[in-house]
Amino acid sequence: MSLTLSTRLRDVRGSAIRDLLALTARPEVISLAGGLPGTDLLPRERIAAALAAAMADPAAVQYGETAGLRRLREVVAEHETGRVGRAVDPAGVVVTSGSQQALDLVARALLDPGDPVVVEDPVYVGALQVFQAAGAALHPVPVDDEGMAVDVLADRLAAGLRPRLVHTVSSFHNPRGATLSAPRRALLAELAERYGFLVVEDDPYGLLAFDGPPPLPIAAHGDRVVRLGSTSKVLAPALRVGWLTGPAPLCTAVERLKQCTDLCTSSLTQIVAADLLADDAWFAGHLDRLRAALHERAAALTGAVASVFGDAVTCSVPTGGMFCWLESTDGLRPADLLPRALEHGVAYVPGTAFAVGRDLSAAARLCFASNPPQELHTAVDRLGAAWHRAAS
Amino acid sequence: MSLTLSTRLRDVRGSAIRDLLALTARPEVISLAGGLPGTDLLPRERIAAALAAAMADPAAVQYGETAGLRRLREVVAEHETGRVGRAVDPAGVVVTSGSQQALDLVARALLDPGDPVVVEDPVYVGALQVFQAAGAALHPVPVDDEGMAVDVLADRLAAGLRPRLVHTVSSFHNPRGATLSAPRRALLAELAERYGFLVVEDDPYGLLAFDGPPPLPIAAHGDRVVRLGSTSKVLAPALRVGWLTGPAPLCTAVERLKQCTDLCTSSLTQIVAADLLADDAWFAGHLDRLRAALHERAAALTGAVASVFGDAVTCSVPTGGMFCWLESTDGLRPADLLPRALEHGVAYVPGTAFAVGRDLSAAARLCFASNPPQELHTAVDRLGAAWHRAAS
Repeated sequence: MSLTLSTRLRDVRGSAIRDLLALTARPEVISLAGGLPGTDLLPRERIAAALAAAMADPAAVQYGETAGLRRLREVVAEHETGRVGRAVDPAGVVVTSGSQQALDLVARALLDPGDPVVVEDPVYVGALQVFQAAGAALHPVPVDDEGMAVDVLADRLAAGLRPRLVHTVSSFHNPRGATLSAPRRALLAELAERYGFLVVEDDPYGLLAFDGPPPLPIAAHGDRVVRLGSTSKVLAPALRVGWLTGPAPLCTAVERLKQCTDLCTSSLTQIVAADLLADDAWFAGHLDRLRAALHERAAALTGAVASVFGDAVTCSVPTGGMFCWLESTDGLRPADLLPRALEHGVAYVPGTAFAVGRDLSAAARLCFASNPPQELHTAVDRLGAAWHRAAS
Repeated sequence: MSLTLSTRLRDVRGSAIRDLLALTARPEVISLAGGLPGTDLLPRERIAAALAAAMADPAAVQYGETAGLRRLREVVAEHETGRVGRAVDPAGVVVTSGSQQALDLVARALLDPGDPVVVEDPVYVGALQVFQAAGAALHPVPVDDEGMAVDVLADRLAAGLRPRLVHTVSSFHNPRGATLSAPRRALLAELAERYGFLVVEDDPYGLLAFDGPPPLPIAAHGDRVVRLGSTSKVLAPALRVGWLTGPAPLCTAVERLKQCTDLCTSSLTQIVAADLLADDAWFAGHLDRLRAALHERAAALTGAVASVFGDAVTCSVPTGGMFCWLESTDGLRPADLLPRALEHGVAYVPGTAFAVGRDLSAAARLCFASNPPQELHTAVDRLGAAWHRAAS
């Protein structure tokens, strides 16, 4: 049977990353490709205990309010108040099925086909797909070691660009690893005020800082910001609990759209998330352990890359999050070399998968979060073998 | 701050039902308004045991494949094979966050703004919202005691209507309570072939039959059918596990769109759903108990309505599912009487909330599933007091 797809779906790029997950599911492949926190780092016992406690309440198995469990919205509001530095009201929090759903709902609530949207280049592919599905006109702005080049954006705005949304992964960027600097955050909030756009501050990694927290959120500098958060990188992806905080009319619109999208997020996993996020002493200790383990993995990966590749590549220096960004300086093209790397038992995502307008064929994203240090060493050795054989 | 919403969101009707849930959350109100299975009927202990078992596996807390957990897709395919009477392949199953998400993704994957879609009248409000959000041109077809009036649809098609989708809640209709008769099912599948549309057979209630199963699914009569299923009404809404089975190109498209909508449904709740659905002996016994309890509640509600209202109302005779449909014969308008009913401590949904083009001001939907028989008697007594006072 032939089926005609909607115009907008035909515009959505498949996720090379998720397609890769199928390839890399073979047990002999060490994957640096996914954006997965290692399961060994997730607090499975604490979650199991929270699940058992939650199931004592009949409400845990029932439908819940579309905007989210009241207790969870309160906890998120409290955390966000601490991070943003001004009062965030629980009514300004909408719980979503992961922050990916928050992004999708924001786009659907605000965008008409053809509306201009600024994305980063390299881009978080999940954001690219959302804006393609919404039919947006994409305007890429490059990302460098200090995050999005807000000065470039300022020039485009001065030249007449009037986006409805500007999307940024502000801290420990996916895929670039970079963190938006404090001056750029302030400037971005100011530009949002001046030109009337909304900043989507996508922040799933902000709590995963190795050396002290990242700069204050963009939302601390102005109120034309919707912040997206998630439990996926700090508790467990399988909770499927994320949220947005933002202007009241946007929250109302997102809630209405969520009604017809999936009615509500799981009451059960929301109770568990609220339990864990509100357990201050446990959560602080867990984050400390998680950050230390990720820091150790980042050091193992970047150390191995330096030792195997020397100055044949440059590698970003991770200060948090899950990713480092590698660029070859000797003409090797990671996109072309992926099949050979898979033969050698290692996977990564070529930079081209994240490119909007730039040539990123010399780059690759490596995730250091999914594997322990020894595995990361082995993975880089395999990468060296695959790439050296190509170079010789 | 003022925000301009997307054109399509402005077309989405708020759900009177979910808005009502806020009003009826007061403990003194007995709610016949929700579409909730009573929490006392949900297998909470069995789910708790399944959760505990699932958490032994590290994969339970991790991201999963977008199309769903392999084991769950296999179990659903096996069940669907049994119900539809021909082989359903696991590759033709996509797991979604409740069947509401399946409906939303099907609409987004296939519809461009302005595309004609046939909906039932009265309509499942969640479907109405989905098609409004997709910008569809809605063509209502009435529902009577045998389900959608497929003969009326046939006339419209003969007169030139060319819908892309025809949506129907085929068994134990929400809100009408009716089940599409076997001849109408066969005719609908035949019309889909002849005119090239896709039937969306929305079937969350089909397993909740009191007196033997409903007629064979529409999908048994042809392959231009996408079937939607859910665990929400037979296991627990908080699992947020539903699915669609349908033509391969549609499954591929829905999977791609789900990537950017929420990445994947919870691995944990999918493991639990697969465990319970595959436990044949337990599931059969659970369904027997659930059906018996719902049947008892349906009888209690309709008996009380007959005794309190006599021939001042007609009431559908439930043969399964969760709803009965009441119509006043003496000029009372349930929509107008709702505030008074709430004062008397009882809630329902007026027929007007489900109307697309018809005048349903004499009707109301009553849910018998959420409350035990004694509460249902009390609720109808309160309704009688509220309505009689209005009539006098």
